[in-house]
Amino acid sequence: MAVHTPGPVRVAALGAGRIGANHAEIVARRVPGAELRAIADPVPGAAERLADELGVDVVSTDISATLRRDDIDAVVIAAPARSHTDLVVEAAEAGKNIFVEKPMAVTLQDADRAIAAAESAGVVLQVGFNRRFAPGFAAARAAVDQGRIGTPQLLRSLTRDPGPFGGDPDRTPPWTIFLETLIHDFDTLCFLNPGAAPIRVHAMADALIRPDARNSGFLDTAVVTIAFEGGALATAEASFSALYGYDVRGEVFGSAGMITAGSAASTDMVLYAADGMSVDTARRDTDLLRSAYIGEFTSFVDAIRSNTAAVVGGHDARVALSIALAAIRSVETGAPVDLADIDVVGAR
Amino acid sequence: MAVHTPGPVRVAALGAGRIGANHAEIVARRVPGAELRAIADPVPGAAERLADELGVDVVSTDISATLRRDDIDAVVIAAPARSHTDLVVEAAEAGKNIFVEKPMAVTLQDADRAIAAAESAGVVLQVGFNRRFAPGFAAARAAVDQGRIGTPQLLRSLTRDPGPFGGDPDRTPPWTIFLETLIHDFDTLCFLNPGAAPIRVHAMADALIRPDARNSGFLDTAVVTIAFEGGALATAEASFSALYGYDVRGEVFGSAGMITAGSAASTDMVLYAADGMSVDTARRDTDLLRSAYIGEFTSFVDAIRSNTAAVVGGHDARVALSIALAAIRSVETGAPVDLADIDVVGAR
Amino acid sequence: MAVHTPGPVRVAALGAGRIGANHAEIVARRVPGAELRAIADPVPGAAERLADELGVDVVSTDISATLRRDDIDAVVIAAPARSHTDLVVEAAEAGKNIFVEKPMAVTLQDADRAIAAAESAGVVLQVGFNRRFAPGFAAARAAVDQGRIGTPQLLRSLTRDPGPFGGDPDRTPPWTIFLETLIHDFDTLCFLNPGAAPIRVHAMADALIRPDARNSGFLDTAVVTIAFEGGALATAEASFSALYGYDVRGEVFGSAGMITAGSAASTDMVLYAADGMSVDTARRDTDLLRSAYIGEFTSFVDAIRSNTAAVVGGHDARVALSIALAAIRSVETGAPVDLADIDVVGAR
Amino acid sequence: MAVHTPGPVRVAALGAGRIGANHAEIVARRVPGAELRAIADPVPGAAERLADELGVDVVSTDISATLRRDDIDAVVIAAPARSHTDLVVEAAEAGKNIFVEKPMAVTLQDADRAIAAAESAGVVLQVGFNRRFAPGFAAARAAVDQGRIGTPQLLRSLTRDPGPFGGDPDRTPPWTIFLETLIHDFDTLCFLNPGAAPIRVHAMADALIRPDARNSGFLDTAVVTIAFEGGALATAEASFSALYGYDVRGEVFGSAGMITAGSAASTDMVLYAADGMSVDTARRDTDLLRSAYIGEFTSFVDAIRSNTAAVVGGHDARVALSIALAAIRSVETGAPVDLADIDVVGAR
Repeated sequence: MAVHTPGPVRVAALGAGRIGANHAEIVARRVPGAELRAIADPVPGAAERLADELGVDVVSTDISATLRRDDIDAVVIAAPARSHTDLVVEAAEAGKNIFVEKPMAVTLQDADRAIAAAESAGVVLQVGFNRRFAPGFAAARAAVDQGRIGTPQLLRSLTRDPGPFGGDPDRTPPWTIFLETLIHDFDTLCFLNPGAAPIRVHAMADALIRPDARNSGFLDTAVVTIAFEGGALATAEASFSALYGYDVRGEVFGSAGMITAGSAASTDMVLYAADGMSVDTARRDTDLLRSAYIGEFTSFVDAIRSNTAAVVGGHDARVALSIALAAIRSVETGAPVDLADIDVVGAR
Repeated sequence: MAVHTPGPVRVAALGAGRIGANHAEIVARRVPGAELRAIADPVPGAAERLADELGVDVVSTDISATLRRDDIDAVVIAAPARSHTDLVVEAAEAGKNIFVEKPMAVTLQDADRAIAAAESAGVVLQVGFNRRFAPGFAAARAAVDQGRIGTPQLLRSLTRDPGPFGGDPDRTPPWTIFLETLIHDFDTLCFLNPGAAPIRVHAMADALIRPDARNSGFLDTAVVTIAFEGGALATAEASFSALYGYDVRGEVFGSAGMITAGSAASTDMVLYAADGMSVDTARRDTDLLRSAYIGEFTSFVDAIRSNTAAVVGGHDARVALSIALAAIRSVETGAPVDLADIDVVGAR
Repeated sequence: MAVHTPGPVRVAALGAGRIGANHAEIVARRVPGAELRAIADPVPGAAERLADELGVDVVSTDISATLRRDDIDAVVIAAPARSHTDLVVEAAEAGKNIFVEKPMAVTLQDADRAIAAAESAGVVLQVGFNRRFAPGFAAARAAVDQGRIGTPQLLRSLTRDPGPFGGDPDRTPPWTIFLETLIHDFDTLCFLNPGAAPIRVHAMADALIRPDARNSGFLDTAVVTIAFEGGALATAEASFSALYGYDVRGEVFGSAGMITAGSAASTDMVLYAADGMSVDTARRDTDLLRSAYIGEFTSFVDAIRSNTAAVVGGHDARVALSIALAAIRSVETGAPVDLADIDVVGAR
Repeated sequence: MAVHTPGPVRVAALGAGRIGANHAEIVARRVPGAELRAIADPVPGAAERLADELGVDVVSTDISATLRRDDIDAVVIAAPARSHTDLVVEAAEAGKNIFVEKPMAVTLQDADRAIAAAESAGVVLQVGFNRRFAPGFAAARAAVDQGRIGTPQLLRSLTRDPGPFGGDPDRTPPWTIFLETLIHDFDTLCFLNPGAAPIRVHAMADALIRPDARNSGFLDTAVVTIAFEGGALATAEASFSALYGYDVRGEVFGSAGMITAGSAASTDMVLYAADGMSVDTARRDTDLLRSAYIGEFTSFVDAIRSNTAAVVGGHDARVALSIALAAIRSVETGAPVDLADIDVVGAR
């Protein structure tokens, strides 16, 4: 079932919202060996509009029916976060290869359920940790692997969403900053410290952008510290509102040197004017990380065609999730949390 | 004839050498709305090898026959420089839309011949001045258009090919540094100083990388100064051997500010080690300018599909060529040369 | 007593070690209105050697006698850290203006004792938090004051000493990384978040450079998280061994933007060679921060001459110390620590 | 006479205008081993005002009398450019060591006269080519000397004065852009290409900032190309009005790599705000190049005290002047000019 036959990989896009549309466009137009065959979105008209733009014939409001189509080899899940696990399982049971946006799951049981379903079905399961495919971050990992900075000792990863924050705190699920935003940084830190498991987590978080929503549990600003096996100490930082645009950066300090990766600059143009030197910044993740998005879908399709495992899969998602869950508990308790305890307790 | 019918633009790649292969891969895989239908190269086996890699069925050693095929809408000419004009004319007469690598021509008569043929046939004629599509240079032009630096007064453009220089001076056509290398910079300077015509040119050139070849007329290093209508003064600079990689940069200084564009950095990763901070540099034009190459072919296909003129066409190539011819005469005579004289004399 | 009479401020350098010699040279040669009158160091010959170099007549191995001299207006204390408080008190009682290297004290009682002595004597008391005078950090604070980034929400400060680490863990006093290294970052974070008091601290630390010394309590790597009144979250990071040189950087993210300050680059020269672009890095604090050192002593002398308070004084040292003490307790207990508890308990 | 006796070098500042005041302050306060003893300026009150600020006792409106004082070892000539040579000769004849702002002379006869006078008197003669002492440019030269970029082949140096241009074209002496502005770049290019003599010069220049003054011979924008022995080609560029501040940069491309030096940034602070990333730029030469100014006077005083030749002296000034004179003739004739012809003809 997992052995891909010749011809392009036929993909169904499940979810046609902002990020789903980004993924669909990339699969349709930018990935060699892929064909966007179908688009499904429960919102009436959403799939049609995107399909028109991309020249796709098959549209549906029924995601479950779409993922079962015979003329589909793979699905891209970009539906609401809380539906991801069920869709992964459903797609796996239908024998489809799966790309799922982060988070793959928000409980460890769900993570295990998704992993088991994909393994049982023998399908590719890739998780949308796009930063691994950003050229600077990929080069950083290569440099770590080459020993250019020695053993990692201090790491940093941050995500700042472009502001002003326009979300609705009341419609933001609890702990979103950990489960959906910092989850990228937790994976990045593991990616940049290969072979070392996280063991202890401490988090501080607050509602600084929307202090009015603090009492309802909304959090928009957070700092998480993670101790890894081997001793490396890492910091992850997030904000929902960077007025200068989308900001994604990483740093690895090791026994022989340091690496930084990521830049907010949108091009290499520098403007010098009466108020100084300036560089325009990217406003959207889909602009700043466009080559990363193209890279992750190219990698996904390559994995399917070559019948190999995804570069970043279910187990990576589970590790990042476990850090997120520990961070959440740390905020709840005001104390550091051992990952071992999260693993024992298992669910939230 | 020039009105494109629905469906992808079917392209034939004429020339499967290093740059032809780059272009073919981009057309085949990276440009929405394009289909690479055929590859032709007179070198036995060259077209086949590339076609296998890209999944193209039609291959030939006969370029003329290929460009006449009925199932072809457009050609990409990446053959030796001295054959460009004839191929443009031939393709135009066959009613095909044309993308031609620079230089489109090496005499003004040839430039006029190519332009006339394309106009007469009503086909799109685009020239491979890729730098216009590099994000930093495109942003620079946009900033000029927006008046962010006022009126351009001093400009600079440079091209340094990656070293060590491995070419054979004996097999390098005379004046290559002006006709094939600096031609990019001449176009870039016009692009960054829109609406102003070049009027006077002075050039100095030498064989510094291969001084042994100086006596045979080989030139590998050059500096050209150009005065434009309105008074702006520009410098173009080239070398055949930059040991640090491919280097393409531009600068526009105006009455209200300055812009710089271009960077040799290959990613945004910075490495700090015992010998200082460092950034890896790109070695090949096809790496450093990859997004520019994708951009120019996307623009070419869009022009065909929307039945509009190319963003950078035959007249732009003619202007850049006239600067190159003036620079050559300046080296020959040791004196500045007025463009008006080049235009009157016409041919070389 | 504190009113400075006309003429240069006559300074005694107390301590002629590495950093004492740096300070003495700056006072002697780089600070308008200052005169280095005397040098004292208990190590035989140390004061003489430095005095010869700087053309100073008065040398002594008796620090206490030196600070009491009638021809001295001010002292620069660069003796071992644990002697700082007593020397501050002694100098204050002698009516001398005081510049004391950090840490001014390592217990809150001692901090209070130093502050009280200076206040009682009416002398200037300045603490060696040089980073406040580094041009980039000073510009960062100015930008914060001007509201250019809005309200600070996320801050970062780091100190990495140049490696390879050549210290002797057995001769490094306990908690040095907090009391002598990170004390700079604690002050920097307060400086860049003006008007907000630190309220809660969490720290993780380890011996990663010298794991063999871990069991004896040696720590060479640390990450500290600090929550401030108003909600801002800050991270301080330190390592004893950066192979690329001395690294001091800061970052302030606010509701309207972000600032970064600090660079490891030693000049604005960039070298492009076969292995990429590179910039040399500064190896020593006294090189990287030379203008900061000159700035702090210029400010000290200005304060004396204008009979005003030091720009950074005893209370700033006490706040930074309280964070350091909380960080130490956090490492001891494995839990976050409220500053209020440190203040109540008072001493360590 | 040239052997300096112990004690500080006693300096008279000749000229108390903007740049003279800068130099006086540096000599008075920033240079070890120097003492500013006297200030002279023919403008009534000018010397007094500066002397008050710097605590200098001796003031005069008589420059000639001042430079003859017995209690003076050295003079700093910062008078109007056309008086420089006469003052150099006068000071040399009085046995004083001489620092003269550029240009030392505006004719080759005058240059020779100044050089001969200093040699005959055995005094130090240093010329104000400050860029040699800017840390980035000094590091660039060191890297060239170390062979890090191989043999120089392409060079660039530029000077852009901060705008908006507030000068009066009618009161600007003819050819100022070559004799007073680009003279810095001519020296810089020689400095960065050590051991190679300039042999041929071409220049283009215009009045682009003040086109209304073009007819009276005013020039505010220029590009000069210089061919050196050994084949290196260099470009010098100047403008009188850079709205973003003072801009001084250099570039050396060689057979093994490239160096860039100079930056308009005023500190290492980077601000990220709604309109992108930005860095403040320095507005004045005395800010951007402050460490260069301190460096050149420190070097001058060291030369006097150690009885050695100046690091940059009369012969360097003569070479730079010869390039300037060739550039002027090139503008006059519209043709390139051989330096040999300038040397034969000698004077202007």
